[in-house]
Amino acid sequence: MSADLALVQAALAEGLQRVVVRFDGQLRSDLPPVSRLVQHVENYRGKMLRPTLVLACGLATTSSLSPAHITVAAVCEMIHMATLVHDDVLDEADIRRRGETVNRLYGNEAAVILGDYLIASAYHLCSQLDSQSVALQVAHVSMTLCAGELLQLSHRNDLSLDEATYFELVERKTASLIALAARLGAQCSGADEGVCDRFERFGRKLGVAFQIQDDLLDLTGQRETLGKPSGKDLEKGKLTLPMIHHLASIGPAGRAKSLLLLEQACGVQKGKGEGASMAAAALRGALEGSGSITHAVRAAERLVEEGKAELGAVAESDAKALLMTMADAVVKRAF
Amino acid sequence: MSADLALVQAALAEGLQRVVVRFDGQLRSDLPPVSRLVQHVENYRGKMLRPTLVLACGLATTSSLSPAHITVAAVCEMIHMATLVHDDVLDEADIRRRGETVNRLYGNEAAVILGDYLIASAYHLCSQLDSQSVALQVAHVSMTLCAGELLQLSHRNDLSLDEATYFELVERKTASLIALAARLGAQCSGADEGVCDRFERFGRKLGVAFQIQDDLLDLTGQRETLGKPSGKDLEKGKLTLPMIHHLASIGPAGRAKSLLLLEQACGVQKGKGEGASMAAAALRGALEGSGSITHAVRAAERLVEEGKAELGAVAESDAKALLMTMADAVVKRAF
Repeated sequence: MSADLALVQAALAEGLQRVVVRFDGQLRSDLPPVSRLVQHVENYRGKMLRPTLVLACGLATTSSLSPAHITVAAVCEMIHMATLVHDDVLDEADIRRRGETVNRLYGNEAAVILGDYLIASAYHLCSQLDSQSVALQVAHVSMTLCAGELLQLSHRNDLSLDEATYFELVERKTASLIALAARLGAQCSGADEGVCDRFERFGRKLGVAFQIQDDLLDLTGQRETLGKPSGKDLEKGKLTLPMIHHLASIGPAGRAKSLLLLEQACGVQKGKGEGASMAAAALRGALEGSGSITHAVRAAERLVEEGKAELGAVAESDAKALLMTMADAVVKRAF
Repeated sequence: MSADLALVQAALAEGLQRVVVRFDGQLRSDLPPVSRLVQHVENYRGKMLRPTLVLACGLATTSSLSPAHITVAAVCEMIHMATLVHDDVLDEADIRRRGETVNRLYGNEAAVILGDYLIASAYHLCSQLDSQSVALQVAHVSMTLCAGELLQLSHRNDLSLDEATYFELVERKTASLIALAARLGAQCSGADEGVCDRFERFGRKLGVAFQIQDDLLDLTGQRETLGKPSGKDLEKGKLTLPMIHHLASIGPAGRAKSLLLLEQACGVQKGKGEGASMAAAALRGALEGSGSITHAVRAAERLVEEGKAELGAVAESDAKALLMTMADAVVKRAF
């Protein structure tokens, strides 16, 4: 690693520290029932992908981070955290980041209200910025995100879900916020509209790749590495890219067999327990056989390359080099 | 009714029409799974207390309503609607405004995400105003509101809840948004800070009175008039003003008897069904006997008078006369 790259990484690490301070400061409450839950949520902090993107895109477009970069990074993480807390209610999840979920420990009611508190806190924080444009974009992306979740919900147990719809809902529910994080990083540096657009497209491609990788890990990953159980998508009747490709690419006989396994693995037949997990294991084998896992891996890798190409015209810098490394890591991660 | 009062009422009615158009326009979506749910929520529109307050306080401080008044009124109703949708998930409610709830019809998942969509839409709408101050206040009150709900949740099945805590949580979870609606009505008219403060205090008193009346109706009201089942508070282990007063004002023997009934009526003993509703009926009798119903009615009436007094220094007008009538109606309503 060059000395300059080390400097950028140090600036990023120092920026992330400030994001954590801003995040915790915004959520602080004098009410014990509030502060107890907020402290729990702070344990959810994981990859910090969205704040890291804000800061790295910021550093790729200006020499030092402003307070606005820090605020925007905290806002993006808070919105993301709210979706995690509400997702855990929806998924009846017990475990996240190796710890028990809020709904598991304090009940669904507390988890729903805590999510709302995080959303309100995020808006409160971004309404303090000089430019109203950030709040407007954050709110717009939040609407897109919810619409994506509702679209996904409406396709639960839909065994005829196609790739176009899969990509539409992934763009909405995951890539929109990651794209915004990248865009706002540049915008807070005072970058031109055209440059902000490039960063947004970079973030969008990266965001879709990120979700494909998440979906792959849910199919093939290990509980120990993930920090949460795998196989939740199948159990919840969510078809993801490998499965969609598989069903579309095999012949009628194989398709009928896989659909039967799928119904056993999904909630469709309410066949939970041993039968469902045997069906899920058989499906994973079939997915390998039809090359559908490889298809999804390649799709994610291609998106990462396209994303990196979007930044081709952006001036070279150590921060940009770091962004390229981050982009590659999206599809290389095992958790 | 004087001719001028009729003019104000016409201006209010016309304003509310514009609020409905703004509300529906903001929530519109091309995605069928989103628009279906949004249409359902439009049926929840009930008393329109918050938007009516924005507009009436607006008309009491300027001669005609601006687009900002309309937007702010729609924003307050949207935030309120989001809390209703999420409350119905928390309360496992099946019925609201004589129709089935979103969670009942489409499941808890859809209801949680729909609530989030309403919140995001409200912020998106208020981030379009010229003044960032509205968005900041709306977000701050939303945080207060969630904190109030969490405080209330932490006192579920708490049979030693006192009046001070009851008032604190009511101020947060209900009165804060009603106070903001009144304040912003004046602020959008360009009223002085001092005048805005008066309207805010007026709204806060009214808001607390409104919640006491709601709690009274839940204890004593009829399902047919309310449009939803009564007795939910007891069932959910929520102590409200009459009960708190009752337990604090009777002797040790009566208290022991009422506590036993209360445990039977609440979720504490998980004793649902016939036993619980007989206990609830016996409790209502005891509350009448100890004068606790009257105590709560008087408290609400006093708050309304104090609220009206806050507007004493505001210039007389037909709109102000209308506000006084609205204030009285808060404690006179049966639904």
